[in-house]
Amino acid sequence: MDTEMKSFSITPVEAGSLVTPKGFSAAGIHTGVKRYRLDLGVIYCEVPASSAAVYTLNKVQAAPIKITKDSIAQEGKLQAVIVNSGNANACTGKRGIEDAYTMRKETAEIFEIPEHYVAVSSTGVIGEFLQIDKIINGIKKIKALTQVKFDAAERFNEAILTTDTINKRACFQTTIDGKTITFGGAAKGSGMIHPNMATMLAFLTTDANIEPEWLQKALNQVIDVTFNRITVDGDTSTNDTVVVMASGLANNVTLTDAHPEWDRFIVALKTTCEQLAKKIARDGEGATKLIEVQVKGALNDEDAGKVAKSIVGSDLVKSAIYGTDANWGRIICATGYSGANINPDTIDISIGGIQTLKDGMPIPFSEEEATQYLATENIMIYVDLHLGDGFGKAWGCDLTYDYVRINAGYRT
Amino acid sequence: MDTEMKSFSITPVEAGSLVTPKGFSAAGIHTGVKRYRLDLGVIYCEVPASSAAVYTLNKVQAAPIKITKDSIAQEGKLQAVIVNSGNANACTGKRGIEDAYTMRKETAEIFEIPEHYVAVSSTGVIGEFLQIDKIINGIKKIKALTQVKFDAAERFNEAILTTDTINKRACFQTTIDGKTITFGGAAKGSGMIHPNMATMLAFLTTDANIEPEWLQKALNQVIDVTFNRITVDGDTSTNDTVVVMASGLANNVTLTDAHPEWDRFIVALKTTCEQLAKKIARDGEGATKLIEVQVKGALNDEDAGKVAKSIVGSDLVKSAIYGTDANWGRIICATGYSGANINPDTIDISIGGIQTLKDGMPIPFSEEEATQYLATENIMIYVDLHLGDGFGKAWGCDLTYDYVRINAGYRT
Repeated sequence: MDTEMKSFSITPVEAGSLVTPKGFSAAGIHTGVKRYRLDLGVIYCEVPASSAAVYTLNKVQAAPIKITKDSIAQEGKLQAVIVNSGNANACTGKRGIEDAYTMRKETAEIFEIPEHYVAVSSTGVIGEFLQIDKIINGIKKIKALTQVKFDAAERFNEAILTTDTINKRACFQTTIDGKTITFGGAAKGSGMIHPNMATMLAFLTTDANIEPEWLQKALNQVIDVTFNRITVDGDTSTNDTVVVMASGLANNVTLTDAHPEWDRFIVALKTTCEQLAKKIARDGEGATKLIEVQVKGALNDEDAGKVAKSIVGSDLVKSAIYGTDANWGRIICATGYSGANINPDTIDISIGGIQTLKDGMPIPFSEEEATQYLATENIMIYVDLHLGDGFGKAWGCDLTYDYVRINAGYRT
Repeated sequence: MDTEMKSFSITPVEAGSLVTPKGFSAAGIHTGVKRYRLDLGVIYCEVPASSAAVYTLNKVQAAPIKITKDSIAQEGKLQAVIVNSGNANACTGKRGIEDAYTMRKETAEIFEIPEHYVAVSSTGVIGEFLQIDKIINGIKKIKALTQVKFDAAERFNEAILTTDTINKRACFQTTIDGKTITFGGAAKGSGMIHPNMATMLAFLTTDANIEPEWLQKALNQVIDVTFNRITVDGDTSTNDTVVVMASGLANNVTLTDAHPEWDRFIVALKTTCEQLAKKIARDGEGATKLIEVQVKGALNDEDAGKVAKSIVGSDLVKSAIYGTDANWGRIICATGYSGANINPDTIDISIGGIQTLKDGMPIPFSEEEATQYLATENIMIYVDLHLGDGFGKAWGCDLTYDYVRINAGYRT
């Protein structure tokens, strides 16, 4: 990413967030669905923004996903995203659908925009009905809060968290047609909310000028190598959603793949998604370390991605890294069952800067040095398959006692 | 299985083992590859036995797998299987292949049989060369031990274990053409051996009369619903192997699918494999419980199997069961991402006798009763998809602190 960032002149905005791109405001509020913490957030755009989204591949999908799909399908435009935490509104049948429509309607009314300009998202407990009255009260109050600029993005970020331990935001800028284009984002990750599974939500904003269909194409392309490359425990939730809104207020020439700076737009969007994805992986339940696997020399990029995901998803690799054990045997094993084309006799593996395997055979290395490296917080694993030019990355976290503790904990 | 066993008159033999079928003997010996425990085992058949095998799908395959494939490919007959534990002879290149051939040659010589009547199997550390001299010494002594009948199967079983906590054996009988046909088996399971991954090995014996090609067909059919339906951590090792040998000494009419009792043969073989598979799952690393998932109402058996495996493979489900939490939300979630055809609105879920979900919606149940049930050692999960007649089972174990402890433990 760093090389790409340099060659495409993409720069991070340290204090930036999803309200840094022109046209966006946000807020977070406490409605009482959760006992103490903020539990309802909104992103608002002063103009109808070109919008695109991707959703969980789980065949059991929560009610709000249906409503968001319906909204975006109509014009490809959104002006508001309303998100509650504490309750996922999943496995809630007809009433769940009605509740999600109610969230949309109330948000549209308070912001005085068409209903289909509103997306709805939920995360939290499965199989319980929303306390819809509390949420309606929250929606009625939340518009006023979007006028308060101080800490607005932080409050939105906090409102969408479940057992996440940190807020996750990203902001990058680049130049297209001589105009500054800003990308912002907020995400919640793989914290389990009692009593159910982890959900990944990400909301991206930009002031780039782009039509919905091209925004969807860009998002699809970028998702595959960012959010689809992280794993905490292999479970795919019922609520996973990534939404991107583009206000167009940067006034660049409308972006399509015929635009000479299309690639720069793609890399900037990818950079923003990758940062959020890495923050989600690092904050996996019970995690103490971020693991990044880079695979090169695959027959193609898809195969490289398969190997990277297979390694970073292996409980045996994850446990070994928790235990600071340079266990390359588990890494080659996960390479072998990844489904990618490989030749066992041409595989090189390095853990950080320490090479452990060459041409499929172990080579001597300093266990002490390896242990020292594995005691750090950002672990890199490099695999070279020596078959072609395919390259891919994936991110995950270590498997710890705390993962078991968090997920074995009986519901209170 | 129980219903099938009754309708096909298949009976367990309590004290039986892989030497109960006519023609087989076995032994286990300590060669010094492991410090204290038995580490070399042999199964010997007094006649060339029709043989078949299946192997790991991992593209990184240990050296002995190549040698066993070569042996069986020649005539489909085996008279001896030599197995060492403590070292997997994987990622050992040319020298590993040579060592595995040496094991085959030495075994053939001592038993005075052709080399291609010998299969070779290894389990243990990856990436270290075999201490082949110790193993050769062991092979030279092991033939004499096959004459000792007392505890022979137990000693073989022990010699193939790694971090398994119990010996795993099975024995069943049925009647074909009025003759008693016996099936025996031994397995090692999902104990990790320092410093590498779990390996599954299973060796089956029978005195049925059957040609190699039909034995292979039977094994393929049975493997899919037994050994391929267990999971401990989703990692597939480089050494996984299942071998079956049929001495023919029961003198039934040669079995093919045209034989009127072919189905009985299949069910008896399946019953033996299923018992070994369940013992492997129950003895997964750190496990305190066996989990069995039964799925019915799928569009077809394949889909039922997908759902069952997805549930039993979910870290979130496994952690919840460790924590005695009747977390049906994680079960429906794993159903949704299984890849099988499902309708979220027609799913029923029961945990033991306690129904928690009907038509995709939660129904009230006694948490106390559920917790009591989940504190037992054999956990049943029932899923009904209400779409068709497809049925399938899968087995696994809970995810515990001890799994992490065992797998994070630094290599000594």
